[in-house]
Amino acid sequence: MELFFSPLACSMATRISLYEAAADARFTQVDTKAKRTVAGDDFLAINPMGMVPTLRTDAGALLTENPAILQYVADAFPDAGLSPSGAFERAQLRQWLSFIGSELHEAIFLPLLDAKSPEAAKAYAREKIALRFGRLETHLAGRSTLLDAFSVADAYLFTILNWTFVTGIDLAKWPAVHAYYRALAQRPAIAKAFAEERALYAEEQKAKS
Amino acid sequence: MELFFSPLACSMATRISLYEAAADARFTQVDTKAKRTVAGDDFLAINPMGMVPTLRTDAGALLTENPAILQYVADAFPDAGLSPSGAFERAQLRQWLSFIGSELHEAIFLPLLDAKSPEAAKAYAREKIALRFGRLETHLAGRSTLLDAFSVADAYLFTILNWTFVTGIDLAKWPAVHAYYRALAQRPAIAKAFAEERALYAEEQKAKS
Repeated sequence: MELFFSPLACSMATRISLYEAAADARFTQVDTKAKRTVAGDDFLAINPMGMVPTLRTDAGALLTENPAILQYVADAFPDAGLSPSGAFERAQLRQWLSFIGSELHEAIFLPLLDAKSPEAAKAYAREKIALRFGRLETHLAGRSTLLDAFSVADAYLFTILNWTFVTGIDLAKWPAVHAYYRALAQRPAIAKAFAEERALYAEEQKAKS
Repeated sequence: MELFFSPLACSMATRISLYEAAADARFTQVDTKAKRTVAGDDFLAINPMGMVPTLRTDAGALLTENPAILQYVADAFPDAGLSPSGAFERAQLRQWLSFIGSELHEAIFLPLLDAKSPEAAKAYAREKIALRFGRLETHLAGRSTLLDAFSVADAYLFTILNWTFVTGIDLAKWPAVHAYYRALAQRPAIAKAFAEERALYAEEQKAKS
């Protein structure tokens, strides 16, 4: 499969998951502002929303939206155990993927990371932090993963928590979340994905300056 | 199972799905401002986020987040055909559930419906309408459902499109979306759920005034 990604964007969750599964995949970098791949292809012809992650399956079909892509990758490589097998545990995986995607990513981080969002929209987003990070703190106390074992939801949450450092959110306020983040950073697949995307991000910023 | 709902909130998607499945379910109304059920129970003790929908399964387990609850209901009543059976079609179902939940519900409608959101946050949300409704329009042209057959994603999208009327979004600008909405409104399960929740909403507003 082919993952269309932008360095350190939420598409990193899929890269982490593909590394966890030792999957054979192609990674195509996208400039989400210019809506072009690094090879110069029109990305809007691939995904009319112009968003990453976008996944092209081996059959050539396109899939968007992180929760859908992450579950697709987990199901494609069942031996990696990136999704639980029980029906209710799978429902809980979807609950966390949705919580991370809508309550954290869309409601809080998207306005905070968007250079074009007005200050009042950022302030409105900041008001949502306490309840949502409090929910994470309660759940993660005494746990090292969101479910009983590492899953694609942890890959997604790690990727999102990375953004706290550039949005002025002090993760140390939530000790369990902080400990969870630091422990995940040590996982080989996460450390590799993060180091690679950090380097690609630095290159991208250098090329733009 | 027991659905904790608030009239005309996004929890209506689950009511529609339960009606489509002719499921035996209990519906418990929640005042999401006061965080109490109509019987006066503390809703935060049930869901610390205080949000609907929340589902209590027959085994007593709690599930939150609409995309997770809707797939749980679809899987619990497979004869109703509310979720496709093919693996990639199920991935597409998840793609639409995520799109509706994050790109429409959270990014656009939540700030527009929130009486406490600042005008700049509403304006920021309005800027997102054209791209996202344009995406829906392109997809729904010539279609009556998001996937090949009616699914829980249609129950969710109908529920969200209802909110256009109270947020000043003129659905007539997107003829395919408008036709889709009007056709869905005729489905018996949707018509029944909508009529019931409209009546409950009117009662709730009257009690508050």
